[in-house]
Amino acid sequence: MKLYDAEWAPSPRRVRVYLAEKGIEVERVPVDLRRDEQLGDAYLTINPRGAVPALQLDDSEVPGGAVICESAAICRYFEAVQPEPSLFGRTPIEIARIESWTRRIESDGYAAAVYALRNAAPAFADRAVTGKWPAVPQIPELSARALIMWGAFTEAMDQRLATSEWIAGDVFSFADITGLITIDFAARAGLAMPDGAANLRRWHDAVSARPSATA
Amino acid sequence: MKLYDAEWAPSPRRVRVYLAEKGIEVERVPVDLRRDEQLGDAYLTINPRGAVPALQLDDSEVPGGAVICESAAICRYFEAVQPEPSLFGRTPIEIARIESWTRRIESDGYAAAVYALRNAAPAFADRAVTGKWPAVPQIPELSARALIMWGAFTEAMDQRLATSEWIAGDVFSFADITGLITIDFAARAGLAMPDGAANLRRWHDAVSARPSATA
Repeated sequence: MKLYDAEWAPSPRRVRVYLAEKGIEVERVPVDLRRDEQLGDAYLTINPRGAVPALQLDDSEVPGGAVICESAAICRYFEAVQPEPSLFGRTPIEIARIESWTRRIESDGYAAAVYALRNAAPAFADRAVTGKWPAVPQIPELSARALIMWGAFTEAMDQRLATSEWIAGDVFSFADITGLITIDFAARAGLAMPDGAANLRRWHDAVSARPSATA
Repeated sequence: MKLYDAEWAPSPRRVRVYLAEKGIEVERVPVDLRRDEQLGDAYLTINPRGAVPALQLDDSEVPGGAVICESAAICRYFEAVQPEPSLFGRTPIEIARIESWTRRIESDGYAAAVYALRNAAPAFADRAVTGKWPAVPQIPELSARALIMWGAFTEAMDQRLATSEWIAGDVFSFADITGLITIDFAARAGLAMPDGAANLRRWHDAVSARPSATA
């Protein structure tokens, strides 16, 4: 199988960190986002969504081969193939908590970072939504919305991490991976962790110190 | 356990349709969104997010009780408790396909419906994002973005359903539930299925004819 990957983008990084935590090695094919290779004809035959990451399976794994897109779907594929170490939870309540926090980080924090990045930088003019779309004009007002969302999101995460070692509870999980790539991606979009968010910073230091963080 | 529920909102409906497909009955507590009960002090002690649905477990299920929020997390809780009939897939590739399509529907179609509804209706002035937030002003330009996204989304779904009976493959799944509540919610926000989208309409008729659709 092959993992279509890109160096700095947050979604491919989510998969890389996940695979490193699982100890799974996969052949990687780099896609050059700076040259818009993800929107070129060759890549669009692999993933018509025009987004990375994408996992291309071999014919031996699925008749006719198959491409899985969406980073969370790729991680869930590997979780089903190799359950240990568990990153999506074992018991019903663990599974639910990891899913709930993962989605909260995505809808509140990650969305804010995308709003801030895609609606301001000239490089994303008419490409305000990730992937292959008709022209989608930027909306500068979304930068202001991103600031509101980011402030409330980081405050909520700081509160959560005041009483919990990891985001979803006592065990490192996919929610922490999602949090890490969100915080680091947001920093590139100008959204920082507040100075006073000591719990969030403690958690970010811990998750960044894991060997997987550099994957 | 208790499921905090609301009549017309799409996320609670996602859980109701899911539970009906699974044959699971849960005590429901109605939350009156027309009166903003979800933002009142009583409900905020249950779910500080100020959103429905929320599942409150009994002490016997989790020491100290627990509240699960986010509709997908609630459904995954029940899937872990009662795996059959499977709605999140059994094999790694089924699991990945269901997750991938579910997320695509959410990020492209559901997001467009939220943009259209929340940024136009006077009832949502300064409440352009679901749940308990600081004031979030509406951005009228998001209605135009919603139209672009909805057009591309429904076209892609129609193409997909030209060659697949259900959204994620040969078997009805959580992706179809997500598709149903998205299409019906979008219609309330003024985003319809295109007249020419025959495959999408065939699928919508089939999914709407299941007894679970009225749950």
